[in-house]
Amino acid sequence: MRIEILKRSQKTKARLTKITTPHSVIETPVFMPVGTKATVKTMSPEELYASDAYIILSNTYHLMLRPGADIVEKAGGLHKFMNYDRSILTDSGGFQVFSLSNLNKIDEDGVVFREHIGGNYIKMTPESSIEIQNKLGADIIMAFDECAPYPCKEDYVISAMKRTHNWAKRSLESHKKKDSQALFGIVQGGMYKKWRKESAEFLASLDFPGYSIGGLSVGEPMELMKEILDHTTDFMPLEKPRYLMGVGSPMELVDGALLGVDMFDCVLPTRLARHGVLLTDHGRMNIKNSRFKEDFTPIDENCDCYTCRNYSRAYLNHLFRSQEMFGLRLNSIHNIHYLIDLMKRLREAIRNEDEVSFRDSLAEKWGDGKYS
Amino acid sequence: MRIEILKRSQKTKARLTKITTPHSVIETPVFMPVGTKATVKTMSPEELYASDAYIILSNTYHLMLRPGADIVEKAGGLHKFMNYDRSILTDSGGFQVFSLSNLNKIDEDGVVFREHIGGNYIKMTPESSIEIQNKLGADIIMAFDECAPYPCKEDYVISAMKRTHNWAKRSLESHKKKDSQALFGIVQGGMYKKWRKESAEFLASLDFPGYSIGGLSVGEPMELMKEILDHTTDFMPLEKPRYLMGVGSPMELVDGALLGVDMFDCVLPTRLARHGVLLTDHGRMNIKNSRFKEDFTPIDENCDCYTCRNYSRAYLNHLFRSQEMFGLRLNSIHNIHYLIDLMKRLREAIRNEDEVSFRDSLAEKWGDGKYS
Repeated sequence: MRIEILKRSQKTKARLTKITTPHSVIETPVFMPVGTKATVKTMSPEELYASDAYIILSNTYHLMLRPGADIVEKAGGLHKFMNYDRSILTDSGGFQVFSLSNLNKIDEDGVVFREHIGGNYIKMTPESSIEIQNKLGADIIMAFDECAPYPCKEDYVISAMKRTHNWAKRSLESHKKKDSQALFGIVQGGMYKKWRKESAEFLASLDFPGYSIGGLSVGEPMELMKEILDHTTDFMPLEKPRYLMGVGSPMELVDGALLGVDMFDCVLPTRLARHGVLLTDHGRMNIKNSRFKEDFTPIDENCDCYTCRNYSRAYLNHLFRSQEMFGLRLNSIHNIHYLIDLMKRLREAIRNEDEVSFRDSLAEKWGDGKYS
Repeated sequence: MRIEILKRSQKTKARLTKITTPHSVIETPVFMPVGTKATVKTMSPEELYASDAYIILSNTYHLMLRPGADIVEKAGGLHKFMNYDRSILTDSGGFQVFSLSNLNKIDEDGVVFREHIGGNYIKMTPESSIEIQNKLGADIIMAFDECAPYPCKEDYVISAMKRTHNWAKRSLESHKKKDSQALFGIVQGGMYKKWRKESAEFLASLDFPGYSIGGLSVGEPMELMKEILDHTTDFMPLEKPRYLMGVGSPMELVDGALLGVDMFDCVLPTRLARHGVLLTDHGRMNIKNSRFKEDFTPIDENCDCYTCRNYSRAYLNHLFRSQEMFGLRLNSIHNIHYLIDLMKRLREAIRNEDEVSFRDSLAEKWGDGKYS
């Protein structure tokens, strides 16, 4: 993986970069669609390409349980298994271990948990997470970390952070495919500026090829998130990619980019799509609303996605009411296109150092600070 | 609509025809995928085109309830509403009125029923069915008929047939778009050869542009169905298309074609796909079977559908077990392609007057007479 910093704005901390992996060139700030179980729900790889998705995310926790890392490896890796030939990023599995499974024991060595499908007890360590991610074969992989909840006492934040640092070193040491997979360290530190600085600086000293920001967007108020994010990126290396995990909504993406973040992922666009909610520059549109029954215009006249070029709100309303899967797919195509295109427009704004007014005009439509 | 009879086999009643509608040229024998609610479940129009589907079927009963015929008409007709620019056939709604709704009253005028979505009472007559189908705007439409159940007493078969004949005349008289929509009459007569002959001859005298065969594949033994079908086609005009409604499985399609049928439709391929069952020349394949977990070959090495060109059985197994919609879509693409391609191969066999051995070699794999 290589990164080229194309521009740093004089007005905000926003940047333009070009990240090159073995599978694609990614212009940032970028939104990465989430393909949890080796598929971006309802969409084909070709539909992702047509949306200009140059990188997607997949979840280690889900893939290790089903179909299992060995099967993906035997298939020739995740790219081949799911027929996606651009870049893929995998997380470490840590976040889902803490959020989806029944946690049994956390200690310095790792985590024992009871997985949510078969109910089996599994031990996961930095070494096993990296081994699994080596087998999956994504272009960008994550160190194993502990994400402190919110709210959380300072004591626990410190111990989770220290564990994360220790696990970061072990992740780095056990990583077998440094040439083809870029391992990112994950900055933690909760909502405490002191520990965010400490974490960012400690991880910077380990010289990872890129850095993620974990432990944000975990339930804290939006203003607090921005404050902590702003503070955190101040201590992160300028010449490395920065990835804000699990974020987010249109405004969060733009605000995050203005605070110096390059990469984002979130299930929001595909999840909303499956609930009939569409993203537009005018805010959310609920396609199941009966006022769309006889509305033969597209979701957005100015959108050039496959859905908007070919289908009316009336048809999408009909498909959703009829519980037809094709409707969920058309909704997903639009929402993914919307966020990827939003980042494209944001990059253009950064290029022109016009990102603040771009952000403000978007906030007028989306509601300043209304974050989901 | 025009039909050109390209060939009549000397060995069986099989024929090759070319049917031209305002939207496409259809080579027969043909299998028509079913798009019940203005979408062939999980599939896009482009995926249907790529499968060489030149005609699909949609259901009047479902569309009149949701979104309603007026909305489809306002959208510019069904083709425009669902973005499908090849031929569409609609049924009359009669079959679903009899099978899905709570029937209230049948008399010479029409049928009163309680529809299954909102529970409203609706009266449907030959005139209203044709009016709705005129609004939907399919290339081929159906006369309103009564399909007798199986088994059924001869008395009732006769009265249902007579009603069907009366309704056929009224359907023809009320049809407002004879230039753009070809109206087919429907032959009934239950399992009684005498009444099948009577029905075929009566309808032939009305000079419809095409004829459907209704009331078969309603639960009768396969041998009986073939016997009645064979007898029925003997009395149908040679120079008009013949459409066997609601059929069927691979063997039924081939057997039907050898008995002189040109057109078929069935929900089987898409329904099976959603249950993880795939159609192949070796019979059915249940993709959720654990033996496919590590099978990295395609469903069928010789199949050139999108699914087989790009995805392994292991991936399809994973998607199905993970309840991912993309898996149902990949399965549907394969099954639709399989039946359309089967008809293509059958046409080639008919061209070479080799259809009997084609049929027999298929029966070896599918089981002779195992019909679903």
